[in-house]
Amino acid sequence: MDIDKAQEVLAKVKDQSLSVDEALDYFRQSPIEDIGFANLDTHRGLRQGFPEVVFGQGKSTEQITGICLKLSEKERKWLVTRIEKETAMEVMKEIPHSEYHENASCLSLGMPEEPLYPGFIGIITAGTTDIPVACEAAVTAQMMGHKIQLQHDLGVAGIHRILSKQDWIKKAHVLIVVAGMEGALPSVVAGLTDSPVIAVPTSVGYGTHFKGVTALLGMLNSCGSGVMVVNIDNGFGAGFAAAQINKLSKHS
Amino acid sequence: MDIDKAQEVLAKVKDQSLSVDEALDYFRQSPIEDIGFANLDTHRGLRQGFPEVVFGQGKSTEQITGICLKLSEKERKWLVTRIEKETAMEVMKEIPHSEYHENASCLSLGMPEEPLYPGFIGIITAGTTDIPVACEAAVTAQMMGHKIQLQHDLGVAGIHRILSKQDWIKKAHVLIVVAGMEGALPSVVAGLTDSPVIAVPTSVGYGTHFKGVTALLGMLNSCGSGVMVVNIDNGFGAGFAAAQINKLSKHS
Amino acid sequence: MDIDKAQEVLAKVKDQSLSVDEALDYFRQSPIEDIGFANLDTHRGLRQGFPEVVFGQGKSTEQITGICLKLSEKERKWLVTRIEKETAMEVMKEIPHSEYHENASCLSLGMPEEPLYPGFIGIITAGTTDIPVACEAAVTAQMMGHKIQLQHDLGVAGIHRILSKQDWIKKAHVLIVVAGMEGALPSVVAGLTDSPVIAVPTSVGYGTHFKGVTALLGMLNSCGSGVMVVNIDNGFGAGFAAAQINKLSKHS
Amino acid sequence: MDIDKAQEVLAKVKDQSLSVDEALDYFRQSPIEDIGFANLDTHRGLRQGFPEVVFGQGKSTEQITGICLKLSEKERKWLVTRIEKETAMEVMKEIPHSEYHENASCLSLGMPEEPLYPGFIGIITAGTTDIPVACEAAVTAQMMGHKIQLQHDLGVAGIHRILSKQDWIKKAHVLIVVAGMEGALPSVVAGLTDSPVIAVPTSVGYGTHFKGVTALLGMLNSCGSGVMVVNIDNGFGAGFAAAQINKLSKHS
Amino acid sequence: MDIDKAQEVLAKVKDQSLSVDEALDYFRQSPIEDIGFANLDTHRGLRQGFPEVVFGQGKSTEQITGICLKLSEKERKWLVTRIEKETAMEVMKEIPHSEYHENASCLSLGMPEEPLYPGFIGIITAGTTDIPVACEAAVTAQMMGHKIQLQHDLGVAGIHRILSKQDWIKKAHVLIVVAGMEGALPSVVAGLTDSPVIAVPTSVGYGTHFKGVTALLGMLNSCGSGVMVVNIDNGFGAGFAAAQINKLSKHS
Amino acid sequence: MDIDKAQEVLAKVKDQSLSVDEALDYFRQSPIEDIGFANLDTHRGLRQGFPEVVFGQGKSTEQITGICLKLSEKERKWLVTRIEKETAMEVMKEIPHSEYHENASCLSLGMPEEPLYPGFIGIITAGTTDIPVACEAAVTAQMMGHKIQLQHDLGVAGIHRILSKQDWIKKAHVLIVVAGMEGALPSVVAGLTDSPVIAVPTSVGYGTHFKGVTALLGMLNSCGSGVMVVNIDNGFGAGFAAAQINKLSKHS
Amino acid sequence: MDIDKAQEVLAKVKDQSLSVDEALDYFRQSPIEDIGFANLDTHRGLRQGFPEVVFGQGKSTEQITGICLKLSEKERKWLVTRIEKETAMEVMKEIPHSEYHENASCLSLGMPEEPLYPGFIGIITAGTTDIPVACEAAVTAQMMGHKIQLQHDLGVAGIHRILSKQDWIKKAHVLIVVAGMEGALPSVVAGLTDSPVIAVPTSVGYGTHFKGVTALLGMLNSCGSGVMVVNIDNGFGAGFAAAQINKLSKHS
Amino acid sequence: MDIDKAQEVLAKVKDQSLSVDEALDYFRQSPIEDIGFANLDTHRGLRQGFPEVVFGQGKSTEQITGICLKLSEKERKWLVTRIEKETAMEVMKEIPHSEYHENASCLSLGMPEEPLYPGFIGIITAGTTDIPVACEAAVTAQMMGHKIQLQHDLGVAGIHRILSKQDWIKKAHVLIVVAGMEGALPSVVAGLTDSPVIAVPTSVGYGTHFKGVTALLGMLNSCGSGVMVVNIDNGFGAGFAAAQINKLSKHS
Repeated sequence: MDIDKAQEVLAKVKDQSLSVDEALDYFRQSPIEDIGFANLDTHRGLRQGFPEVVFGQGKSTEQITGICLKLSEKERKWLVTRIEKETAMEVMKEIPHSEYHENASCLSLGMPEEPLYPGFIGIITAGTTDIPVACEAAVTAQMMGHKIQLQHDLGVAGIHRILSKQDWIKKAHVLIVVAGMEGALPSVVAGLTDSPVIAVPTSVGYGTHFKGVTALLGMLNSCGSGVMVVNIDNGFGAGFAAAQINKLSKHS
Repeated sequence: MDIDKAQEVLAKVKDQSLSVDEALDYFRQSPIEDIGFANLDTHRGLRQGFPEVVFGQGKSTEQITGICLKLSEKERKWLVTRIEKETAMEVMKEIPHSEYHENASCLSLGMPEEPLYPGFIGIITAGTTDIPVACEAAVTAQMMGHKIQLQHDLGVAGIHRILSKQDWIKKAHVLIVVAGMEGALPSVVAGLTDSPVIAVPTSVGYGTHFKGVTALLGMLNSCGSGVMVVNIDNGFGAGFAAAQINKLSKHS
Repeated sequence: MDIDKAQEVLAKVKDQSLSVDEALDYFRQSPIEDIGFANLDTHRGLRQGFPEVVFGQGKSTEQITGICLKLSEKERKWLVTRIEKETAMEVMKEIPHSEYHENASCLSLGMPEEPLYPGFIGIITAGTTDIPVACEAAVTAQMMGHKIQLQHDLGVAGIHRILSKQDWIKKAHVLIVVAGMEGALPSVVAGLTDSPVIAVPTSVGYGTHFKGVTALLGMLNSCGSGVMVVNIDNGFGAGFAAAQINKLSKHS
Repeated sequence: MDIDKAQEVLAKVKDQSLSVDEALDYFRQSPIEDIGFANLDTHRGLRQGFPEVVFGQGKSTEQITGICLKLSEKERKWLVTRIEKETAMEVMKEIPHSEYHENASCLSLGMPEEPLYPGFIGIITAGTTDIPVACEAAVTAQMMGHKIQLQHDLGVAGIHRILSKQDWIKKAHVLIVVAGMEGALPSVVAGLTDSPVIAVPTSVGYGTHFKGVTALLGMLNSCGSGVMVVNIDNGFGAGFAAAQINKLSKHS
Repeated sequence: MDIDKAQEVLAKVKDQSLSVDEALDYFRQSPIEDIGFANLDTHRGLRQGFPEVVFGQGKSTEQITGICLKLSEKERKWLVTRIEKETAMEVMKEIPHSEYHENASCLSLGMPEEPLYPGFIGIITAGTTDIPVACEAAVTAQMMGHKIQLQHDLGVAGIHRILSKQDWIKKAHVLIVVAGMEGALPSVVAGLTDSPVIAVPTSVGYGTHFKGVTALLGMLNSCGSGVMVVNIDNGFGAGFAAAQINKLSKHS
Repeated sequence: MDIDKAQEVLAKVKDQSLSVDEALDYFRQSPIEDIGFANLDTHRGLRQGFPEVVFGQGKSTEQITGICLKLSEKERKWLVTRIEKETAMEVMKEIPHSEYHENASCLSLGMPEEPLYPGFIGIITAGTTDIPVACEAAVTAQMMGHKIQLQHDLGVAGIHRILSKQDWIKKAHVLIVVAGMEGALPSVVAGLTDSPVIAVPTSVGYGTHFKGVTALLGMLNSCGSGVMVVNIDNGFGAGFAAAQINKLSKHS
Repeated sequence: MDIDKAQEVLAKVKDQSLSVDEALDYFRQSPIEDIGFANLDTHRGLRQGFPEVVFGQGKSTEQITGICLKLSEKERKWLVTRIEKETAMEVMKEIPHSEYHENASCLSLGMPEEPLYPGFIGIITAGTTDIPVACEAAVTAQMMGHKIQLQHDLGVAGIHRILSKQDWIKKAHVLIVVAGMEGALPSVVAGLTDSPVIAVPTSVGYGTHFKGVTALLGMLNSCGSGVMVVNIDNGFGAGFAAAQINKLSKHS
Repeated sequence: MDIDKAQEVLAKVKDQSLSVDEALDYFRQSPIEDIGFANLDTHRGLRQGFPEVVFGQGKSTEQITGICLKLSEKERKWLVTRIEKETAMEVMKEIPHSEYHENASCLSLGMPEEPLYPGFIGIITAGTTDIPVACEAAVTAQMMGHKIQLQHDLGVAGIHRILSKQDWIKKAHVLIVVAGMEGALPSVVAGLTDSPVIAVPTSVGYGTHFKGVTALLGMLNSCGSGVMVVNIDNGFGAGFAAAQINKLSKHS
């Protein structure tokens, strides 16, 4: 159930362009849509502000297509993450208006054309190989109505690179810092701003990097106050959280 | 350097109640205050909106007293975390206006009397033994000017307990969820709200709880979208981040 | 040695349709059947109520066929788990009455047509990708004579999904809860029933999920009293244990 | 809310010895009892068949006494686990009818005088130092109305010890096997019975025993089919689960 | 340098069929043979009783062939472990008298035709999939002049299988027990004999088996006194150690 | 049951100084002695050549005294390991002929006055702090009738120290190498001898030594062929294994 | 920015062959070169003495070529590590003067023809399979102007091999010791010299070697004083550090 | 054997103030001094440039005193690390000229009055609680004849603090960077200098800091080229290595 759609229905009831019975029909739909191998949580849009996001990895092309078709009936927008290009191409045959974001390995429907919230979410990578994770975060936040800005390859071994972005950092409403290796960049960024900082460890590294565990541990133990962390390579989680945070910009 | 103080100085320059030279004297102070065993980052208040917070654990009474006295010269408010009652009593002899928060093991100076920001930060514990960590988060966020509300002992094994708080959850601007054991509570909370959720794993548990690692891993792998995580028992980090987030409520 | 067969033999002795000597011949068979690369425990059916189950992974097609042929001589029913479709097809050429369960990757002989025990075993998955493990549990319990019912995709981030199944949960004699990610579902289920709950962690997840370790740890530290856990992805073990438990329904 | 009490109330309504309004008063009580630092789940007895069990470790004498007093108002029986003798003595001053079980470090009220269910739960230890965990399981199952029988020090290095108990093992409705070191005993026991086997790893060992992790891993990887595992030293969990299982003996 | 060859040379000197100068020529050879990418330890046969064994994994066909050709100049026998069939076939083209042991993935030259030491080394596997590791141990010990006997698939879940081998176990001079899963078999075997027991964990298992770590930990924490352990899948190490042990049989 | 005693009884039957009935009385004793909190394996001496050894750690003074008194009835010799001096003093009051080995923290009864087997077991420590573990191994092997020789502080950073003992190393029938830190000494020793080498990692170290895990891993991955390993600080296990090995010296 | 080039420019200014304005043009270049997916740190040569080294693994052929072309504009020499032969061949088509080092999997431009610093860096491997890592170190140090010497296959199980190189070891200015398995070689080397020793653990091994973690831990816990360690398989890091160290040879 | 003393003896032989026989007496001393519980490596000074350093932790006062007295006979200077004040006071009663360094928990004899090598070793701490480890490094390097300079509390969350020391950093011959938490400081320092950087992780932190493991992993995965790492809290190792490195300053 789409929150915009629901608001629209209620507005029509209020201005009497829709009868109470017709409105009831809309709201009578079950909060769960059972399609056998999945129980779609169709009220999530109402509760969390965005419909259930589909984690594509480990699901078959048939499963993803089935879920997306069902979602398309209920929602104006949806997002699939971790979906390979080949799979996405198959799904797009069934749902022509959907859009594939190759850098982010995401498939979406209904990307907003304009940001719905003030300010921007700044996304920073420590190195070139961290870019795909940053893009997943970017697509997610954009889907949820936020403006994003990306800055790449600002690792701490050349500290002047991040310092040269100080003004930009101070302007961002929220910052997402994506880093592999020792995961030190969020500490430095957090020390330069009073905005919330979300750190995303990536699996970029080798040996004792343990596929991202080292970067994660570094971020959890950051000497920068208030750094928040999500799972390794979880660009989606970071983008979602940043979007939830920046929605507060509209409050007062 | 206190951000309120700095704003005051600049305001006086603007309305010409302070000469440029007098203002310069104020701003000429070094951004680092070297007291031998510590290099106080006295510009942190300007950069991050709150002065350097002192992590009390592992520091001697003499070191904490020395740092607090120096901070008191420069700042209107400061916070020491992880400080035992006995140590705090010693420091308070030197700095009589400071205040000890026993549940939170924190010592503070200059706690704001009124919240400076709209809304409230909701803090939830899964069990009774998680309370001290929740209190550290609460004191931190209050010091930074935010209203907090606490709800205790709402673990998922009695799911009706958390469901009975749904309305309150929806009203909170930001949610901090403090849990030990399997760390499942943030997932449920995140599914009930569109506000940001910060999860704090605690070291409460035994055996394979590994002093909080299990709760941490559960939170990092939450099926609730956008859950952000801080270090085990890091109530301070959660409170600080929640405060940074809720400051956005004032933006627009 | 099949427990049903043994009972039949003894019954015949009792009603004198079989001589003692003929019966002795039956029981004289060795409790171990040595086929070179394997020592079949042919008395397991007598001791544990079900013949030795063959773990197919890591065994060659030749080894599995050899074991199944030997088992077929001694037992009325047997089960092979973790067997790829291709391998199963080969084995089925030799043993035409065997049956392949694709969702469960199991090959069986002699699946009971009717449940032999009262009630049903409820099997719940948290997400779509947990289904194969649930199916392995289902086939195992069915082979052992129990009725099973499956419910899919009831993860805790949409808590109303599991709550909508409360009545069904209360009716199940035993519950098997299959979950990846943070493994929180068994805690919620255990809080809603007074039946035994067996939790199966799955390797579904990424990053710090560590191929199921996080879900396992969550389940071992469940705040739901009495949750029992089996190895990661061990649907067979859960189905076997649930069957042993539900046999008690027949006792009094 | 005590399930026996609730049944009694309803029975009285049925036989008209209690008015509907009086019965309603009883059921009108909130399912949550808020005592500030704890939210007692007072309906757990109804849902799970036994009231919320208090985990004593990490709670102050004041907190435990407060919770027990409140529970005593609502329930006919309760259990506190992991409670030191000194603390228990303090609580018993306030609640004189409670009973301390020293070997199990448990405090209880209302231990049933007779078993309420048929059969017995067999509890086996591998070594002398595993006894306290076995006793915690025993007290828990007894509180829930089951008969228990204990057998100690039957480790696999002297395999004839466990073999000498084969008949007893076959008679038990459920088996709890408590072992430290390599945790091998449950595999052997599971091979000798068709009853459910719950394995409890203990922290007994040194070096690479890692405080019970090795025993836990051994049990999770048991070659004995259907072995179920609980957290390290979690005698309570094993006893609770065994009790839930043996309740099925009454079904048919 | 081959110890048999060295003894022969010295014997000839003693019986004057070889001059001192000719003998000196033999012993003058360097204890290190440098072939660029390897420094062969050509005195190892003298010091350890068996020439340097080549670990094939990770070495190219060229490297293995080069080393084997050089070894063939210096030694009467040598052994390559962890060598794929294809690679072995290539090497055998250059060294026609060498012999490939497919079950063991070993290539050897000069396998003794008769055992050189009394008694036999008993090798036991817990399951069918442990056989290749057992074979590596067997080939190694045979190369070093010992008789071996193998018994397969005697896991503890069917404890009568290992008990039926008690007499054979008591006769073995040394026992090698190869097991995956929980690694419990060595504990039981050690309790049945007063001969040395060498445990070899294998990587056979899944989930929390962690590629053999669980079996290894179980063996290190064995309640069977005196169990000695080698690295996961290290059949070679076990065979080598067993051979060194059984050489003592010749002492007195 | 003591193996010497049993041999004596049988010898008397053979020479007719004891009647068959009297002998039967001796052998009729149960192989398990149940003393409530322990099931003594009184046939272990017959099976393994040495009576059950008592692991003192975690047992109360009362438990140890009770076990030792019962053992004293059945056995001529016994051993308690990991027993603090104070506890041992208490036990010795009840069993005056027992003997405390302070360096080894062991209590024994019936230490043989002369070695019963040829040769000696060489025990080497890498550093001074490894000595207590070496002493536990020494007392164990001596109790079992073997001669031991100790050499201390021969760590590899001063490689000439171990090289200066080459002749002594070659003479030892079995070598026990006790080392903490990186655990490198067994690799060097194994390269200098053709006798079996048992490596004992100790918990001596700090930081990433992880209480002995690093030394253990080093030893399991030794480049010295045939190194066998026991648990961290397990001097008893090494001494027991070495004794079992050196018994082979008597065979031929 | 190349440090040699910068010195040349300044020298020309000094001898007036270059005007101040022309020199300024050179120095006016930005310290960051933004090429979209990467922010080249073009001042690193000035700060660290060598331009930013490109870590090839995980970068596409296009990305590497793009970075190398940009670097070629700014620098006289550069280095790409962890680059497969096929990728390197593609890059070399665009940059013909670059050179591929197959053993080291490195691509370089501008390798110095003569060493620029006195002495040599000694590089030792414990085994044949450690050679590629040693070669990465060698190429790195040579690129930075140092002479290197390599010695292979000197593992501690044949201790005379490393002892035979004592004189060479004493002559080296810095030593890099590359070892897998138990990582013991650096301890022995460090005990033989007063030069700095850099240890490089390799992922060579199996089972509990954990892809190099065991060798790393052994090296971090070396009993050889002053051993310094880099990440697993990090030949580049070791070569870079050794080069920085040997530059001090020129100081006085 | 002291290297200065040895040079002095040889110089006297050269100028004929000492006879060859007298000199021989000096050099005839054994390279190992056996004092029962320790084998002192008395030639280490000759080989490594500094006598064997005594690791005090885990050694008794008697053992340390015994070793120091024996060292005092052979050496002009020695160092004991990790020695508590009380123990040191006891040792100093026997060896009055020794000196206790309280911040570093070290006891020394013969600290050089003047640096023997050019330049200085810069030692940086990230926080106040890292100071003791830095002091251990400082005392070690000073004992070996080097000048040291310390800078405290320069963590990366206030990045201007470390940047304000850039000139000083560039002047240091070697840098030791001591940091707990996420261990990010060495990466930033390495990016600012072309001198060797030795990183020392400390156990300062909590929760997922795992007593220093997180800082260690961060340092091993540093994006700063050439960072070398020693064990957690190993100030001695860092000081020793820095001293070995700075000795090269004298070479040319």
